[in-house]
Amino acid sequence: MDNFSFYSPTEFVFGKGQENNCGALVKKYGGSRVLIHYGGGSAVRSGLLDRVKASLDAAGVTYVTLGGVQPNPRDTLIYKGIELCRKENVDFILSVGGGSCIDSSKGIALGVPYDGDFWDFYGTGKPVEKALPIGTVLTIAAAGSEGSGASVVTKEEGMLKRDVGSDMLRPRFSVLNPELTQTLPPYQTACGATDIMAHVFERYFTNTPEVEITDRLCEAILITMVKETPRVIENPDNYEARANIMWAGTVAHNDIVGVGRSQDWNSHGLEHELSGLYDVAHGAGLAVVMPAWMEFVYKHNINRFCQMATRVFGCQMNFENPEATALQGIKCFRKFLHEIGMPINFEELGAKAEDIPVLVEKLGIGDGTRGGFVSLTAADVTEIYTIASKATL
Amino acid sequence: MDNFSFYSPTEFVFGKGQENNCGALVKKYGGSRVLIHYGGGSAVRSGLLDRVKASLDAAGVTYVTLGGVQPNPRDTLIYKGIELCRKENVDFILSVGGGSCIDSSKGIALGVPYDGDFWDFYGTGKPVEKALPIGTVLTIAAAGSEGSGASVVTKEEGMLKRDVGSDMLRPRFSVLNPELTQTLPPYQTACGATDIMAHVFERYFTNTPEVEITDRLCEAILITMVKETPRVIENPDNYEARANIMWAGTVAHNDIVGVGRSQDWNSHGLEHELSGLYDVAHGAGLAVVMPAWMEFVYKHNINRFCQMATRVFGCQMNFENPEATALQGIKCFRKFLHEIGMPINFEELGAKAEDIPVLVEKLGIGDGTRGGFVSLTAADVTEIYTIASKATL
Repeated sequence: MDNFSFYSPTEFVFGKGQENNCGALVKKYGGSRVLIHYGGGSAVRSGLLDRVKASLDAAGVTYVTLGGVQPNPRDTLIYKGIELCRKENVDFILSVGGGSCIDSSKGIALGVPYDGDFWDFYGTGKPVEKALPIGTVLTIAAAGSEGSGASVVTKEEGMLKRDVGSDMLRPRFSVLNPELTQTLPPYQTACGATDIMAHVFERYFTNTPEVEITDRLCEAILITMVKETPRVIENPDNYEARANIMWAGTVAHNDIVGVGRSQDWNSHGLEHELSGLYDVAHGAGLAVVMPAWMEFVYKHNINRFCQMATRVFGCQMNFENPEATALQGIKCFRKFLHEIGMPINFEELGAKAEDIPVLVEKLGIGDGTRGGFVSLTAADVTEIYTIASKATL
Repeated sequence: MDNFSFYSPTEFVFGKGQENNCGALVKKYGGSRVLIHYGGGSAVRSGLLDRVKASLDAAGVTYVTLGGVQPNPRDTLIYKGIELCRKENVDFILSVGGGSCIDSSKGIALGVPYDGDFWDFYGTGKPVEKALPIGTVLTIAAAGSEGSGASVVTKEEGMLKRDVGSDMLRPRFSVLNPELTQTLPPYQTACGATDIMAHVFERYFTNTPEVEITDRLCEAILITMVKETPRVIENPDNYEARANIMWAGTVAHNDIVGVGRSQDWNSHGLEHELSGLYDVAHGAGLAVVMPAWMEFVYKHNINRFCQMATRVFGCQMNFENPEATALQGIKCFRKFLHEIGMPINFEELGAKAEDIPVLVEKLGIGDGTRGGFVSLTAADVTEIYTIASKATL
């Protein structure tokens, strides 16, 4: 196990009706003048926004609002949010939505006290030294942004998707009410589930030996997702299955299951170019890319893929032919994704094989490699996109 | 799943040599005048205390020291610590030791700013409103006190063991260096491992349905302990196995695997009277009490015990006779405890069956019950102690 630091100071307030505690929570964490940042009309139509406002009113906290966050959140709205916060002397950002909304809020949070362009922090590793405090009311179990210090934003000019990470961006509190996810269409639910599993797999495929505890914790989340996801696809009102998925999504990404081990994150990198170029859902892109990545890299550590196959997907170990077990596990994963309604190849995703050179180019690998479980050259990445483009069950 | 709040703001700094960062960590969390509170001579002999002092010196942080914490930490030393802190204007407590040392430090931390007797908070539910900040350097993977807000202390007069819990008592940081545990004798290592597993079982045996994610996370820790503990008993220098156990111990008790579900804690309650009366190690007492508790309650939910048997101990499910599988799982647990060198009955522990009425009396159940997975009367508890007194493999 490698040396590590683990710090997750967010207070998670989980369960039915917890959005009604927003006002008290904002106050507890020092907010008095709030920007409520939300996504589309669903938070309005469902009455969620009104409940949040009523809770702030009851706590004597004032607010302004900014809606309209799109999936793959844009820099343009963030500039607008920064301006609004400065003008209105906002001291706390309350993000009501999914991962895109929270990521957008983080962009605003770091931009408000910064003199230059907030985009300076994205994709550059420039350390965040100051940010407004954030709270979240999560409406989609997926991104894990509610418990992480990460933010991914797309620059409209060139559709560049870049990220930033800092403890300064960890939410002070996150309200997780599984009821709020019950109105999600099955496709978005499945996208979220895929993202949760991908967050675990990015950590699971490691070159660090002797990490039984985090291996087992990773598998605990994956097994739960394999059990619970089909239940909510079949019955969107299943609160209990929604609750299990929601807590799994948070634990999957606050890094408690990923500490002390090298991680991969190449599937996320490859996917970001897909959703950047085609504006498809991040989870859907992952469903196409991640099994293809697995098929390209599995020979690097067949035993680890056998471990996934047997422990997560319940495959029988073929001791005469471990490679067959490894491949069977990947097949099970892709079949699972198909069964919950995810695309499994470029056609189903709405991507085009002829764009592969563009995708590879945008990754900016050049003559170098992308590090991870296996270091990938531009040719390797081309091959992974090609596998993804043609995948079948 | 039940509604819950989860808050674990402690920064965990894990790995080789991390005690050398103590000074910087104390400073980061606002300490300038430190009480170094430690246990017996082993921290002195091993050179750990010197390394901690050197790190504080390098950071320009001054300190006073107080050693001599015993297992099952006493109120008497806490009074001494409170007096010393007040006299020396201490503003931060650095606890260098195991669970007893950290629990003792928490008693001092809450006692210093409190006008009355620190014992007022123990066993009474009186809320802690103020406490000095604490940091820890953990030397035994076991208690989970390094990441929790709990403290258990024994009042010498009457040997009463009582507890307190508050977010105010959560350490600001905890240094977890598995190397520091390599000098522990096998018996203490096994006691720690037993305590870790018990912390999980207390959460695992729940009456809350549909808690797959926390069930699986609990099992992840238990499976890890079953694999890694015999490895360190066989080879105390096995850093990797020590590391896996150490992180398992923290995750087992910061409640991330126990949220949203009713918990039991009767085995801990019954054990506290044993270690209170005989001054035996907490883990050893648990090894005797917990399987006996399981044998007394398993009929309440045979399926859950079958789940433990099959998922944790790898038993084959007997579908014609599930009760046999449930009992086999408990047997596996007791056999495991025996194999790592733990006592399994009163004689091996150094307890006496004739004291059972005294133990039951001290629990103070009277005509009532102790709630949990199964509500226990005084007669039930008598029966559990009796099973524990006579247990065999």
